[in-house]
Amino acid sequence: MSVFEQPRSFASDNYAGAHPEVLAAIAEANVGHQVAYGGDAWTSRLTEVVRGLLGAQTEVFPVFNGTGANVTALTSLMPRWGAVVAAATSHINSDEGGAPERVSGLKLLTVDTPDGKLTPELVDRQAWGWGNEHRVQPLAVSITQTTELGTLYTVDEIRAIADHAHGLGMAVHMDGARISNAAAALGVPLRDITTDAGVDVLSFGATKNGALYGEAVMVLDPAAAEGLVYLRKLSMQLASKMRFVSAQLLALLQDDLHLRSAGHANAMAARLRGSLEASIAAGEVSGLRFSQPTQANAVFAVLDHAVADRIRERVRFYDWGRAAGEVRWMTAFDTTADDVDAFVAVIREELTR
Amino acid sequence: MSVFEQPRSFASDNYAGAHPEVLAAIAEANVGHQVAYGGDAWTSRLTEVVRGLLGAQTEVFPVFNGTGANVTALTSLMPRWGAVVAAATSHINSDEGGAPERVSGLKLLTVDTPDGKLTPELVDRQAWGWGNEHRVQPLAVSITQTTELGTLYTVDEIRAIADHAHGLGMAVHMDGARISNAAAALGVPLRDITTDAGVDVLSFGATKNGALYGEAVMVLDPAAAEGLVYLRKLSMQLASKMRFVSAQLLALLQDDLHLRSAGHANAMAARLRGSLEASIAAGEVSGLRFSQPTQANAVFAVLDHAVADRIRERVRFYDWGRAAGEVRWMTAFDTTADDVDAFVAVIREELTR
Amino acid sequence: MSVFEQPRSFASDNYAGAHPEVLAAIAEANVGHQVAYGGDAWTSRLTEVVRGLLGAQTEVFPVFNGTGANVTALTSLMPRWGAVVAAATSHINSDEGGAPERVSGLKLLTVDTPDGKLTPELVDRQAWGWGNEHRVQPLAVSITQTTELGTLYTVDEIRAIADHAHGLGMAVHMDGARISNAAAALGVPLRDITTDAGVDVLSFGATKNGALYGEAVMVLDPAAAEGLVYLRKLSMQLASKMRFVSAQLLALLQDDLHLRSAGHANAMAARLRGSLEASIAAGEVSGLRFSQPTQANAVFAVLDHAVADRIRERVRFYDWGRAAGEVRWMTAFDTTADDVDAFVAVIREELTR
Amino acid sequence: MSVFEQPRSFASDNYAGAHPEVLAAIAEANVGHQVAYGGDAWTSRLTEVVRGLLGAQTEVFPVFNGTGANVTALTSLMPRWGAVVAAATSHINSDEGGAPERVSGLKLLTVDTPDGKLTPELVDRQAWGWGNEHRVQPLAVSITQTTELGTLYTVDEIRAIADHAHGLGMAVHMDGARISNAAAALGVPLRDITTDAGVDVLSFGATKNGALYGEAVMVLDPAAAEGLVYLRKLSMQLASKMRFVSAQLLALLQDDLHLRSAGHANAMAARLRGSLEASIAAGEVSGLRFSQPTQANAVFAVLDHAVADRIRERVRFYDWGRAAGEVRWMTAFDTTADDVDAFVAVIREELTR
Repeated sequence: MSVFEQPRSFASDNYAGAHPEVLAAIAEANVGHQVAYGGDAWTSRLTEVVRGLLGAQTEVFPVFNGTGANVTALTSLMPRWGAVVAAATSHINSDEGGAPERVSGLKLLTVDTPDGKLTPELVDRQAWGWGNEHRVQPLAVSITQTTELGTLYTVDEIRAIADHAHGLGMAVHMDGARISNAAAALGVPLRDITTDAGVDVLSFGATKNGALYGEAVMVLDPAAAEGLVYLRKLSMQLASKMRFVSAQLLALLQDDLHLRSAGHANAMAARLRGSLEASIAAGEVSGLRFSQPTQANAVFAVLDHAVADRIRERVRFYDWGRAAGEVRWMTAFDTTADDVDAFVAVIREELTR
Repeated sequence: MSVFEQPRSFASDNYAGAHPEVLAAIAEANVGHQVAYGGDAWTSRLTEVVRGLLGAQTEVFPVFNGTGANVTALTSLMPRWGAVVAAATSHINSDEGGAPERVSGLKLLTVDTPDGKLTPELVDRQAWGWGNEHRVQPLAVSITQTTELGTLYTVDEIRAIADHAHGLGMAVHMDGARISNAAAALGVPLRDITTDAGVDVLSFGATKNGALYGEAVMVLDPAAAEGLVYLRKLSMQLASKMRFVSAQLLALLQDDLHLRSAGHANAMAARLRGSLEASIAAGEVSGLRFSQPTQANAVFAVLDHAVADRIRERVRFYDWGRAAGEVRWMTAFDTTADDVDAFVAVIREELTR
Repeated sequence: MSVFEQPRSFASDNYAGAHPEVLAAIAEANVGHQVAYGGDAWTSRLTEVVRGLLGAQTEVFPVFNGTGANVTALTSLMPRWGAVVAAATSHINSDEGGAPERVSGLKLLTVDTPDGKLTPELVDRQAWGWGNEHRVQPLAVSITQTTELGTLYTVDEIRAIADHAHGLGMAVHMDGARISNAAAALGVPLRDITTDAGVDVLSFGATKNGALYGEAVMVLDPAAAEGLVYLRKLSMQLASKMRFVSAQLLALLQDDLHLRSAGHANAMAARLRGSLEASIAAGEVSGLRFSQPTQANAVFAVLDHAVADRIRERVRFYDWGRAAGEVRWMTAFDTTADDVDAFVAVIREELTR
Repeated sequence: MSVFEQPRSFASDNYAGAHPEVLAAIAEANVGHQVAYGGDAWTSRLTEVVRGLLGAQTEVFPVFNGTGANVTALTSLMPRWGAVVAAATSHINSDEGGAPERVSGLKLLTVDTPDGKLTPELVDRQAWGWGNEHRVQPLAVSITQTTELGTLYTVDEIRAIADHAHGLGMAVHMDGARISNAAAALGVPLRDITTDAGVDVLSFGATKNGALYGEAVMVLDPAAAEGLVYLRKLSMQLASKMRFVSAQLLALLQDDLHLRSAGHANAMAARLRGSLEASIAAGEVSGLRFSQPTQANAVFAVLDHAVADRIRERVRFYDWGRAAGEVRWMTAFDTTADDVDAFVAVIREELTR
C-alpha cells in the first residue's frame, strides 16, 4: 500500500473519498460546453429536484464548502447589525477560523449546552436587547442537524425553536452539514425537519456524505433571506463550472443516495457503539464510557489518554476534549462492518492489556 | 442533443468542461481514506512538483476558485491598512463582486490602461502617499497574466514592474487565472514569468484550463506573505477533501498538460484571428476590426451591434463594451479547428449579408 | 508667541479653532446630569431645529467626525452588496484612509471629473450592471457640496443628479462637510440644496465651520436609509455625552451662525482671489494662475514649486497636486481681511523677486 | 428647572457633564490656528506628560470614544486571524454593538467570571489552539480596569495575567474606561497598574471622568502594537481639531485632576454603600443586598423589582440583570455627599414602606 492508499479510519467523514455514483455523475456532466456560473442544465435540474423535496418556493445556491454555505446563509438573514444565537459547540463558532466575524462581521451570541442542542429556553439566554443600540441585535438562531456532538433534533424540537425564534422576529438557520444522517436516523423526509419545521435557510451538506466538494444554501423561506445571488459571489463561493457541483448534489438527492449513504454510516456507528457496550456489559472491557448518545454517525467516548494514544497508533481518530479524555469516532458512507469489527477488536485489545 | 449537451461556444473558457486527464486523476485519487484539509498524499506531491517548477522555497495553498485565490493572496501581502494598485480592467476590480473590499477591506487603487497592462509609470499614478494616514497605503501591485484583454506581459515587462514595486516597498501579486496561456504563448518556463521575474505571490489558475474547480495560491517569496494557513480558512477557501483539488493541479502540471491545453487554446484563437484577418484583407469581410492584439486565447473585435446579435444567435459569446460594439471571443482547451472554421463561416456569412 | 499660539494660515479650515458662540454653547450645556447617548434636551432640541430647516420627516444622528458621518450615512443606504458612485477626488475616496472599504466593505466606483463634480452623464459611467452578480451593485451616488476642489453644485445640478439616480433605483448621499459654504454662496436655504433637491441622506459638517468636533448624519428620506441607530454605534460614532455635540450644532444652526461664518470664509477667499487677479491684471504679478473657480472658501492656484515653497515658509498651506505645481489656499470663519491682505503681500513679494 | 437642567442621578458617570477645569482647558486651547490631526502643541505636550507617567517609550493616540479606543487598540495587537480572550461581561463583548466584530473582524473568545475579572486560569479556558487553522487564533487578552461590575484588579493580579499571556505569546490590552477610579482606589501610580504590570496597550478613559469627549490609546510596548497611525484613521477615530481632545486629557492628567475626580466618585460610592449597610445592620432596611464588592464608583445591589421601580421614579438608575433584580448605582466626579444622602433617604423610605 503506497502513501496514496491509506486505511479507512474513524477520524472524520471528511477522510472518506467520493461515492462512486457521485464520481460517475461528474463524468456524465463532462460533456461539451455549458453556461458558466449556474446557467447550466444540471443546476436547473437540481433546483427542480430540491423543490420537489423541500417545497416549490425553495431557492438553491450551490457553493463550495460548509463554511461558505453557513456564512453566506447567515449573512443573507440579517442586516449589518444582526447577530446569531448559536450553541458554543457549533461549527460556526468553534471550527470556522472566525470566518463569520471576519467575512461578514457577524457576532455570534453563544450558549453552553449539554449536548450541542439549543432549546427555546437556551435561545432566550441571548435573545434579548432588541432596540438597544449598545447590544448587537439577535436576529437569527442557528442550529446544527446532526449536532457537532453526534446528537440530533427531533421534528418537534426544531419546530419549537423555530416557532420561538419567529415569535421573537428572528430567522432560523440550520447547519445541515450532516442533515442526511439526521433524516436517515429519524426516518422522516428532509422536508419534515426543514421547511415544515420552520427552518428558513438550510446549509445542505454533501461533502461529508460522499461528494468531492460542494454544498448548497437552500432558501426555504425566500421572504427571510436577501441578496444570496450577490452574497455568494462576494463571499467567494460562486463556482464557474457550477454544473459539477450540481451534478454531485443531484446524484446524492436522486434515488435517495444521500439517505442510503448516511443511513449506512449511522448503522456503522451504532454497530461500533453496540459492540463496545456489549463488551462492557459482558465485563470484557472496562475503562470506557460514552459521553453522548449515538444518534447518527458519531461515537463520543471517554477513556484513558495513554490507552487512547495506543489505539490511535493503530487506527486514526481525534481527541475531542483532551483534558477530559474525550474522543470522537466517526463513521462514513464507506465504513464497512469489517472496519468496525476490526476497530472494536483493537479497542478491546488495548483496553484489556 | 438534449439540454445536457450544448455546442461549444466562444463565450468563455469557463464554459468548457474538464479535461479527460484531469477527470482521470480525480478518479485515481478516489481510493480509501486520506487525511483531510491538506494532510493527504496528493497535496504533498503537488508541493514537490510546484517546488520543482517555481523554486524550492515555494509554498502551495490549494483553494476553490479564482476570486478566493486572488483575495486570499492579496490579503496575505498586507496589513489592514494596505491597498492594491491594479488596472481598472483587472478581474479583482471589475468581476469579483466587490469581494476584495468586502472580505478583506482591501481598497483597490485603479489605473486606466490601453491594454489591461500596468507599467512602472502607470503604477506610479497610484503608488504614493506612504506615511500619510489620510491615504490608504499602497502596499502591493497586482498584475494579470494573461490580462483580461487577452494581452500578455513579457518577462522583461514583469521584471520591470516587480523591480519598481519592490523598490517602493510594495509586494507583487500575479493573477494567473490564465498564466498557462501566457507561458505557452511566450514559450518560457513558468518560473521565468513568476519567481524569476520578481512575483511574490501567484494565483495559479486551473479551472479555465481544464480543471473542474480549484486554483492555488503559490507563495514564491515566503518573506512577502503572512498567515496564509489562517487566511485561507477564514476566507472560506479551505477544502476538506483537498486531495481532489491537488490531484487536478498535479494532472495539469505533470507532463505539461496545462501548457499543451493552453497552447492549443492559443492556437485556436490565432486561427480565428488569422482567418478573419485574411478574409478582411481579401475584401471578403468588412465592418470588422480588432481592438486588442491576440496574444493568447482571446480575440477582441468590434462590429455592428445588430450583426453581433445575429451571430450570437448561432454561436454564443459575450459583449465586452456594449456601447463601443466590442465583443470577446474566447477559445478553450477543447475548441477544435472545426469549431473555429464553422464560427468563421458564420461570421463571414452574417457580415456579408 | 508660544508654541501654543500659531498665526492663522491658509492651510485648512481644520486649523481654525472653535467659534466663540460654539464654545459658549458648550459651557451652557454643562449643567447637571443629562441622559447619555442622545436622551438629552439638546439633542431633542437639535432634531426640532433641523426639522424646521430640512423638513419634518428628517432624522438627526449626531456623530464625531466627517469620516464617521460619511461612512455611516453611506452604509445606511445599501445592503452588503452595494457600491457607491463618487468622484475620484471625493473625500471618501481620497482622504479617508480606506475607511469605507474597511469599516463597511463598500466599494467606491469612481469617476474622473474636471472640477470635482458629478453629472448624470458621469454617474452613468459607473451606474450599470444591476443584477449581474460579478459586478458590485451601484446603489448610491455620493456628491460633495462644496466639492474638494472648492466648486459647488447649483440647485438644478443636484436635482438633475438626484432625479437621475432615483430613476436608476439609486440613493443620493451628500457629503456636506462644507455645505454651509455652499448655502451661503448660493444664497439659498439649506433645504433647497438638500431635501428639496432630492438628497436622501446628508453628512452635515460642523467642524470645518467653527465646531470643536461633531457632525451629523441627517436622514432626509427615512425610506432610503436603514439601521442608523445601530450603524452609528457599531461604527464607533456614538457619543456618550451627546449633548455637547448637539449643543454645538444648535449654536451653528440657530440664528444662522453657520451661514454667517461660512459666508465670511467665502468672502475672504473671494478677497484673496480678487486681489491676486487684480495684481495679475495690473501686471504686478506673473507666474500665477488659478486651476479652479473660487466659488466658496478655497482658492486653487498653480505656481512655481520653488516660489510656493518660499511663500510657505512664511504662511502655511498645502500642495494639492505637487507634480502640477497646484496649491490649495483655504479660508476659515476666523480668517480676517488683514490676514488675506498680508498673505497677498507675501505672495506678491515672492512672485516678483 | 427646565428640561435643560436635570437632577444628578445614579444612572451613569456618562450622565455627568464636563469638569470645570476641563472646560477651562478647552477654552484656553481655543487660540489661533493649530496644525490639524495632531500636529498641534497640546498633543505634543500630552505625549510628554503621558511619557512622564507611563514611561518614555509610550506612544499616545487621542481618539473620540471608548469603543473607538478599544477596537483600535485591539486591532493594532493582532493580524486578521487573531482573536481576543475577554470576560463575557466586558464592555467590548456586551456593550459595543458588535463593533469589534464588524469593524475589525475580531472574534471575542469569552469567559464567564463571577466578578468581571479574568485570571490566568480563566484565560486558559480560551487560550489554546495555536497553529490550528480551524480555530481563530487567541492573540490577546483584554481586561477592564475597573471592571464593568465595579471590581478592580490588584497590581499582582494584572501582572499574573500579563505574565501568563506573554508566556503564551499573547498581548495584553487594558480597557481603562475607569482606570483612574482604579488608580485612586488602589492608591498607586497609573504606571504600576499598566506599564509596570505588563499591559501592552491601554485604552485610557476620560469621558466618564469629567471630559466632554475623548479617550486615548496609549501604546505602552511599541513592539506589541502596529499601524496605529493608520488604524486610527481608517477606524474613523482621527479628530481633525485634535488639540481639543488633547487639552482635555492634559487637564485631567496634570495636577492629578483625574485622580481627584475619580477618588471623589469612589468615596461617594463608598458613602452610599456604607450608609445602606449601616441601615441594614441597624435593621432599618431589609430586602436589600449587594451582589458585588464596591471597590470603585459602582454599587451593585439586589432588591425587589417593584421597589426598585418606585425608587427609580424619584432618582434615575439602571437595571443590570432585570431577571435577578440586580441594579447598578454609579457615582460620578460631580456626585455630592448630599446627593448620596438624599438617595439613601429615598431608598430607605421605599424599602420600609
